[in-house]
Formats: sequence, structure tokens, C-alpha cells
Amino acid sequence: MERKIAIQGIKGSFHHQVAKEYFNESKSLIECMSFDELVKNVLEDDRNLGIMALENSIAGSIIPNYALIDYNKLHIIGEHYLDIRMNLMALPGQTIEDIREVHSHPIALLQCKKFFSRYPHIRLVEDADTAETARRIKEKQLTGIGAVAGMVASEMYELPIIADNIHTVKSNKTRFVIVKAQNSVIPKDEINKASLKFELEDMQGSLAGVLNQMNNYKLNLTKIQSMPIIEKPWQYSFFVDITFDQYEDYEKAKINLEAITKEFKVLGEYKKGAV
Amino acid sequence: MERKIAIQGIKGSFHHQVAKEYFNESKSLIECMSFDELVKNVLEDDRNLGIMALENSIAGSIIPNYALIDYNKLHIIGEHYLDIRMNLMALPGQTIEDIREVHSHPIALLQCKKFFSRYPHIRLVEDADTAETARRIKEKQLTGIGAVAGMVASEMYELPIIADNIHTVKSNKTRFVIVKAQNSVIPKDEINKASLKFELEDMQGSLAGVLNQMNNYKLNLTKIQSMPIIEKPWQYSFFVDITFDQYEDYEKAKINLEAITKEFKVLGEYKKGAV
Repeated sequence: MERKIAIQGIKGSFHHQVAKEYFNESKSLIECMSFDELVKNVLEDDRNLGIMALENSIAGSIIPNYALIDYNKLHIIGEHYLDIRMNLMALPGQTIEDIREVHSHPIALLQCKKFFSRYPHIRLVEDADTAETARRIKEKQLTGIGAVAGMVASEMYELPIIADNIHTVKSNKTRFVIVKAQNSVIPKDEINKASLKFELEDMQGSLAGVLNQMNNYKLNLTKIQSMPIIEKPWQYSFFVDITFDQYEDYEKAKINLEAITKEFKVLGEYKKGAV
Repeated sequence: MERKIAIQGIKGSFHHQVAKEYFNESKSLIECMSFDELVKNVLEDDRNLGIMALENSIAGSIIPNYALIDYNKLHIIGEHYLDIRMNLMALPGQTIEDIREVHSHPIALLQCKKFFSRYPHIRLVEDADTAETARRIKEKQLTGIGAVAGMVASEMYELPIIADNIHTVKSNKTRFVIVKAQNSVIPKDEINKASLKFELEDMQGSLAGVLNQMNNYKLNLTKIQSMPIIEKPWQYSFFVDITFDQYEDYEKAKINLEAITKEFKVLGEYKKGAV
């Protein structure tokens, strides 16, 4: 039995693209229609891995996915940054003048609104998934219909790209993490990043103390986000990412941070991805 | 000419509910179909106010709205917390057994998935807006169709509530801010909260320094969020909210913070809302 990789969406989705780039393989994918289903597949079999989008440069953190990782005690064992590029694709031989309707995910359409304003003859139709439309065009040999999706959907469903990079904000980096039910044993000298969660009773002073400790142990903060704790007014939980050169520094800092924060939890220790 | 209040969505939406609670008035509303349109209306006339959702306890910060406020140099002049409660409503006389289809915004439906799993005869249909469906049911006198929306939609379109508080996560506080094109003159002794944005060249040490300064001047941090700056790798911008008792403390701190950060900007100074 081999390990399987659970992705959000079908083959051809951006999660599929991450699977190809990170694992250099695209076999054994489990296509999940929601992040809940993805987590279920990861929990069911210790060998399975999941790929989850966690934040992007336009929309910020995807807090519900943080909550899923935290609640289900998943371990982040790696990360991968993907530059999201949207392309218009259709059946071979179709030109932009032939296209009457373009289907895609609402967010994808929104990001390409400016491009399509130049083509008023094209009607934009919202759909559940970027890759799903591409698959349907191929299967049903739909003419006059275009899909907005990533490169991997074009390859997967053999739909030539009519226009590439049609999204307005050109830099749309999305950070994905690789999750597992059990922690993987990664050699300590390869670990140079960690994702932490902790609570502070009130922010006055205490967060400064945490940051001072991080400084003392040469940990670099690369992300910090506070979330109010609903049941505990004026208390906050923090999602924090740090990078470091020496695992020993991090190990010492961890003992210290555990002492000065509440509900200290390591969401994952891994090798940082190239931005 | 009187001032107008621009809201996202139509009358009966959650933004409308905030207008009612915050201003104690619901006249002179401008119904906007997007946040872009809302900002346009606020910029067009200095007297106009806008209401924008900025963060909620389930999904976190709505970064695109932060970006709109920042980019268009809007001023936050107030805030209001709303407990989002979802209700199932239909034409008078209809019971849950009569309902065959429920329409609402995808997020609203998602939040009520558990409730509807008990009623497998009901088909869930995604729609653009929570209040929009309520209005359509009323106008076209649609039987067999229910809407999931807030209390104000039920009042507005005279649709009795069949089931109230049907969302799974009971505490769903959303923070809205009131924005203007020009800064309002609020008496200094009424101001006890501020929203700031600044950049730091690298987080190592510098953020701890900022927090230490805030401590020195008795400012309480109530929110912090880092965002990577796309064009400047390893540099970060921060959205920070602080509360304080004395405006003078804040005023002194501001001079200091401006000196130790880059691109320091006050997004708003206002009276904090009741959580």
C-alpha cells in the first residue's frame, strides 16, 4: 500500500499543481470536495498526506484552515509557495471571439474582471471550481465556453491556453502546507521553520516578552496573527511562524516560550519553502 | 442635503442591521453590490459614510477591505460589533415541511449545514446575498422557498422566522467599521482606540521594540496582523489596533512609533465599540 495525497478540488486544481511541484508526483491523489473531507482522509490513514492552502498575499490567512489543523491535531510537515496564475483556456481551435461564456470559481473571475472588461461579448458564469469547468469542457466537447484555471488544468484536460496571466494583481503568492496525522521524523538539521500557537492572558507586555525571548534565541518571526478567544474576552490566541538557523536555539526557546505563554502548541516543525 | 450611509448589500443585509444599531436610523441608505462600489460612494461625497465588515471570529481579518481603506485613504471613525445570527424565514403560514428549497449566500448555508442535515427534503441553493432572497420571496410571493438571513431581513420583507439561530458556531461576532473620505473631528476625550499601519524592515527585534514603546505609553494591543510586502521580500507591514485611557499617552506614543517604524499611518482614531 502506498501513501496517498489528499488535495482540495479535482485533478487540474492549484492544489494538484502543488502536489506535482512538491512531491514531484501526481499519482495516488485523493480528490476532496472540501477541506473537511481532506482532513477526514488524512486522519483515516497515517500514511496519507494532505495539502492545504493556508494564506495568500491578497486575502491573508485562511483562518478556517488554521482551525482545522489545530482542532484535528494535524502536523505541518512542510510548506510550498505557489504563484497563482490564471489562464483562459478552451477546446483546440477556439479563439477568444468564439467564446461566449467563461465559467470559473467566483474568486478567480473576480481576479480577472479587468481582463474580461475588454471582451463585453463574454458572459461570466460562477462555478464551484476552476478545474471542474475545464474537465467538463473536455468531456462534453463544449464549444463557445472557456475556463479560467491554472496551467495544470490546461495540460490535464488538453485545453490550449487562449490568454495567459489574465489576473489583475500579478503577484498572488499562496502558501500551502503539507499535513499529516502523525508527526514525521525529519532530521533536526533540516528543520529551520516552525508554526506555533499560544495564548496570552492580556497582550499588555506579555507579547513583548515573547518577542524578546525569540530575539534572545535568534528566532526570526515571519508571521504573527492575533485572534480573539471567543469564550475568554480580552484574551488572545496567536498564530506565529518563526525561522532559525540552529535547531538547538529553537529547542531552548521552546522550553522558555512554553513557560511564559498558555496553551503552547507546536503545529509543525519543517523545512522552509522557497518564496 | 443629508448625509447618506453606504452599505454592502441591500436593505435587510447584516450591513443594514449595523446601520440601524450604530446610527439608530435606516433612512438614506445607499445599497452597494460590492465593497468597491461602496468606497466609490464614500469618496464621491464628503458627507457620506460607509459601513464595512473588517473581521470576524470565524474567518479572521477581511484583508481586501483593509487594503481598500488603506489604498483609498479612508478614515475609520467608528466601529461596531454584530453577533451574526442566521434564521430560516419564509412567507406567512409556511412551515418547515412546506419548504423544498432554501436559498442564501454560500457562507451562510455552510454555517447552517448541520441544522439542514436534519431536513433532507430541503435542497440548499447558493445565492448572491442573504437579504436578496428574502426580498424575492416577498416580491414574487414564492411558496416552498425559504431564505437564511438576519432578523432585519425578516422585518423588512415581512417573512416570519420558522427557525432562529440555526448556525452551528453560536458565537460569530463580526467587527464592522464606519469609514469616511475626510477625517471627522471627534472630541479627543472620546477617542480611546486607534487603528495603525506600519512597516518594519525585518521583524527581528524591531517588533519587540514597537511593543515595548506601546507598553511604556500604556497602550493596549487588541489586534496584530503581519502581512508580507510582496515587492519587498522579508519586509512586513502590520495592521495593529490599540486601546488607551488617555489620548495624551497615545499622542506621545505616536511620535515615537513614527520614528521607529516605516510608512507609519493612522487608519483611524475613534471610540471603541462594545464587544
